[in-house]
Amino acid sequence: MAQRFRIPGGLTGELAAEFAGTLILILFGCGVVAQVVAGGIGDHDSIAWAWGLGVTLGVYVAGRISGAHLNPAVTVALAVFKGFPWRKVAPYALAQLLGAFVAALIVRWNYTEVLNAFDPGLTIKSQGVFSTLPGNGALPVGEWGAFRDQIIGTAILLFLILAVTDVLNTPPGANLAPFVVGLIVVAIGMAWGTDAGYAINPARDLGPRLASFLTGYEDAFRDQNGYPYFWIPIVGPLIGGVLGAGLYQALIGRFLPAQPAPVAEPDVPRQRTGV
Amino acid sequence: MAQRFRIPGGLTGELAAEFAGTLILILFGCGVVAQVVAGGIGDHDSIAWAWGLGVTLGVYVAGRISGAHLNPAVTVALAVFKGFPWRKVAPYALAQLLGAFVAALIVRWNYTEVLNAFDPGLTIKSQGVFSTLPGNGALPVGEWGAFRDQIIGTAILLFLILAVTDVLNTPPGANLAPFVVGLIVVAIGMAWGTDAGYAINPARDLGPRLASFLTGYEDAFRDQNGYPYFWIPIVGPLIGGVLGAGLYQALIGRFLPAQPAPVAEPDVPRQRTGV
Amino acid sequence: MAQRFRIPGGLTGELAAEFAGTLILILFGCGVVAQVVAGGIGDHDSIAWAWGLGVTLGVYVAGRISGAHLNPAVTVALAVFKGFPWRKVAPYALAQLLGAFVAALIVRWNYTEVLNAFDPGLTIKSQGVFSTLPGNGALPVGEWGAFRDQIIGTAILLFLILAVTDVLNTPPGANLAPFVVGLIVVAIGMAWGTDAGYAINPARDLGPRLASFLTGYEDAFRDQNGYPYFWIPIVGPLIGGVLGAGLYQALIGRFLPAQPAPVAEPDVPRQRTGV
Amino acid sequence: MAQRFRIPGGLTGELAAEFAGTLILILFGCGVVAQVVAGGIGDHDSIAWAWGLGVTLGVYVAGRISGAHLNPAVTVALAVFKGFPWRKVAPYALAQLLGAFVAALIVRWNYTEVLNAFDPGLTIKSQGVFSTLPGNGALPVGEWGAFRDQIIGTAILLFLILAVTDVLNTPPGANLAPFVVGLIVVAIGMAWGTDAGYAINPARDLGPRLASFLTGYEDAFRDQNGYPYFWIPIVGPLIGGVLGAGLYQALIGRFLPAQPAPVAEPDVPRQRTGV
Repeated sequence: MAQRFRIPGGLTGELAAEFAGTLILILFGCGVVAQVVAGGIGDHDSIAWAWGLGVTLGVYVAGRISGAHLNPAVTVALAVFKGFPWRKVAPYALAQLLGAFVAALIVRWNYTEVLNAFDPGLTIKSQGVFSTLPGNGALPVGEWGAFRDQIIGTAILLFLILAVTDVLNTPPGANLAPFVVGLIVVAIGMAWGTDAGYAINPARDLGPRLASFLTGYEDAFRDQNGYPYFWIPIVGPLIGGVLGAGLYQALIGRFLPAQPAPVAEPDVPRQRTGV
Repeated sequence: MAQRFRIPGGLTGELAAEFAGTLILILFGCGVVAQVVAGGIGDHDSIAWAWGLGVTLGVYVAGRISGAHLNPAVTVALAVFKGFPWRKVAPYALAQLLGAFVAALIVRWNYTEVLNAFDPGLTIKSQGVFSTLPGNGALPVGEWGAFRDQIIGTAILLFLILAVTDVLNTPPGANLAPFVVGLIVVAIGMAWGTDAGYAINPARDLGPRLASFLTGYEDAFRDQNGYPYFWIPIVGPLIGGVLGAGLYQALIGRFLPAQPAPVAEPDVPRQRTGV
Repeated sequence: MAQRFRIPGGLTGELAAEFAGTLILILFGCGVVAQVVAGGIGDHDSIAWAWGLGVTLGVYVAGRISGAHLNPAVTVALAVFKGFPWRKVAPYALAQLLGAFVAALIVRWNYTEVLNAFDPGLTIKSQGVFSTLPGNGALPVGEWGAFRDQIIGTAILLFLILAVTDVLNTPPGANLAPFVVGLIVVAIGMAWGTDAGYAINPARDLGPRLASFLTGYEDAFRDQNGYPYFWIPIVGPLIGGVLGAGLYQALIGRFLPAQPAPVAEPDVPRQRTGV
Repeated sequence: MAQRFRIPGGLTGELAAEFAGTLILILFGCGVVAQVVAGGIGDHDSIAWAWGLGVTLGVYVAGRISGAHLNPAVTVALAVFKGFPWRKVAPYALAQLLGAFVAALIVRWNYTEVLNAFDPGLTIKSQGVFSTLPGNGALPVGEWGAFRDQIIGTAILLFLILAVTDVLNTPPGANLAPFVVGLIVVAIGMAWGTDAGYAINPARDLGPRLASFLTGYEDAFRDQNGYPYFWIPIVGPLIGGVLGAGLYQALIGRFLPAQPAPVAEPDVPRQRTGV
């Protein structure tokens, strides 16, 4: 989109959109974990749905101006496979990180009383409100398992983002792709959140981790065993995103016809076979 | 819409639509809390979904005639930023308040036996069926925390309502914006309901509060500590709505191109880069 | 639709569609209650979602041929307010009843082993799999409460069905109205199911009640207090449906412009005010 | 679709699409059961939603190239009733099986630590992560009950797939059929999963069963009573799919007009009666 209409403000506008879209994503993402874990309201399904809806809404916010990456793993994969300009990769990633950071500070502020009551020492008990831990801090998954998981989970994410936004495939019309992209994250949260809390987004993890560290969480950069952990939800997703986007090209992209299909509207008469 | 087609009955029609849409919203909103809290059927996710679906359905009811604000915080923010006529603000707010009041009376009537069995004294134990309390009446969040929360929560609401209905952005087509607007409220209910029960709507809170007071809830205007509380879910949302709408204009609105994008239908051939 | 294209088979085709659509509805509706209550898998939210999705899918099945009423309360209300031919009312209602009856027999058959293990005497303990009870068989709601509830609940249903299918309002496009109609029933299940189990459909209740009676549930026509109950989810919905449809006409219908609005697609340039 | 545009690579492309789409389906399907059962995160509703969303996303992946059957029962039923070429049936089924097999290996790998902690002996306790069991391994449903259930469940699936993709009926537009097809599987999971875990897809069951057997689950081909079970979720769905598709043709298909309806967009003026 950004290529076809002049965005007033140019790159500044795009970075504002990435900042705002990622801010919305994390307001819901860290917000729901605070509500469930510290507030005791809701359950894991709430977490999966609200993260996914946060993605949907963040994409609606930023979609037209910046393309709504909201995730450095998306930005890098689009640079590798879809011609997104490399010179914009670092600025986009920084805007995403800043959006996530500010959103986490707002969650931190709004949940002050509840976090203090639930976990006065600001320990690992409520660290998961902000950043991820191997095995969600409880299951026997170590650094390697979490790293593997972040590669696979982000590969699934990018494979599917490319699938549902590829105009040569059968993407949702009527500007409803943001809804379906959110459903991808709902499903990942339900099926791929055990080993490492499905960060699948370096900005989503590092921004809130920094925010929690600066507001009293002294062990924010370590896991439950005391090892440095923060780099895994950064490096894993960057690798996984490129892997998943490449697999999409290899398994699906190269077999697609060169012209978009007419949208599957029932007012176009069609033969009935070939469902 | 209302500007482009003559609404039979003029302002009367618009007020009837705001009344009916808000009535539908509160029939589901207060209804689901009655079912979960007093009836013991369902859980917090039911509350989040049914409130959001109530918004969706209320917007479908009133959409064409009045624009379906259903919330004085929306009406005021649209007056400040979108040219909604100031002379209609008070009538709209009154129609919304009346719709919420009548809906709460219907819930009160239909749940008579169940409320009497669950909470014969009509105390704070079931007050939450009708109106909100700081920390949902149980968590250590006081007036200030609830006030802050209502400003932030309503700012998120208006920021997103403007995003998903802005024809210069990428709003849902096929008349599905009401569905996505409902999803905003689902997500707020899952992530921003801890501190003050996400009223984020003065009519939603004051109307049912009045209805409960007039039908036996003597302490309806006070919180669990005996302090007057009713004004917080009125003033907080009005401030927050204007704040959120202004932030949308500052971060997104001013960077949008002057022409709507062609709707993202896959039958329009497009370059494949620039997802 | 039926009026504009000749349906091969005429009324026979329409009745087959009503039969099949209601069959699908009840296969999911009674199926989910059997799974949750007798099988112990899922919870009340599963019930609300699967009933609603059953409606969505039943409407997709029957939509083009018969208009997909699937409910005598809908058929009667459309006859009163929308010109549906009165001579078709009884045949439609019988086809709906038969579809619900056959679907309940299939559920009864498939859940034989599980029902026998859970409730060998086929008592009120598992009666709720098939038909409704006041207060869901447990809460202190008597005949009057259930009757009142069925009137109100079906009034909400018809008010909203008219709203989301009214081409002069803002109905969902892209043939997605069946999805939104299903969401109405999801929301009613979450918010209006306490007093009487939200039958809101005479065929939905009587068909499975007959099926359970004929397969061993001797007390199927009585409530937990031994009173005849089966007539309440028949008479209540028929009254409530007409009431709700009439209220829609009074509050919304008469204020709608005479021409449909252009669908809210963002490719139509529009002034930005007047969200 | 495949008929109208030349797919680069021909049948190879179609098989790659069936492989990839089924892979995505099973990554979510087996993933969510691993997360819920072995990881202890989520509940049965998570399983129903994530399986359904896996279907939605798998269909978006493969839709344009292969038609996204992702299930030998779908492929066979389309060959019987919709002219899908019989010579492609076996290749499609093999590609689906291979996709499910590889996906299950990925789930097996990623959940290694968690499965080992939950069920070190790799017994029937966690067999359900990969393949189905009668009565979900706990309820008193034997081979016959499971066989009956698989026929009925798959008949419902194919009846509805034909309904929501039939251009002569009222299928969802805007390329949203994959979303609605996913909802079919959500609803089946909530209402028809008690007796046999709703395989309703031979590839979905046999592929992961093989993967689990080859990675240490010695009893993968037997049920909790020691009887060979693997053939039931193969034969039952193949029979049920043909049965359901035939019933659709008999009850609905033959009554449909010969021309597609204009899509139900509200910008087409229409008479108001005949909802």
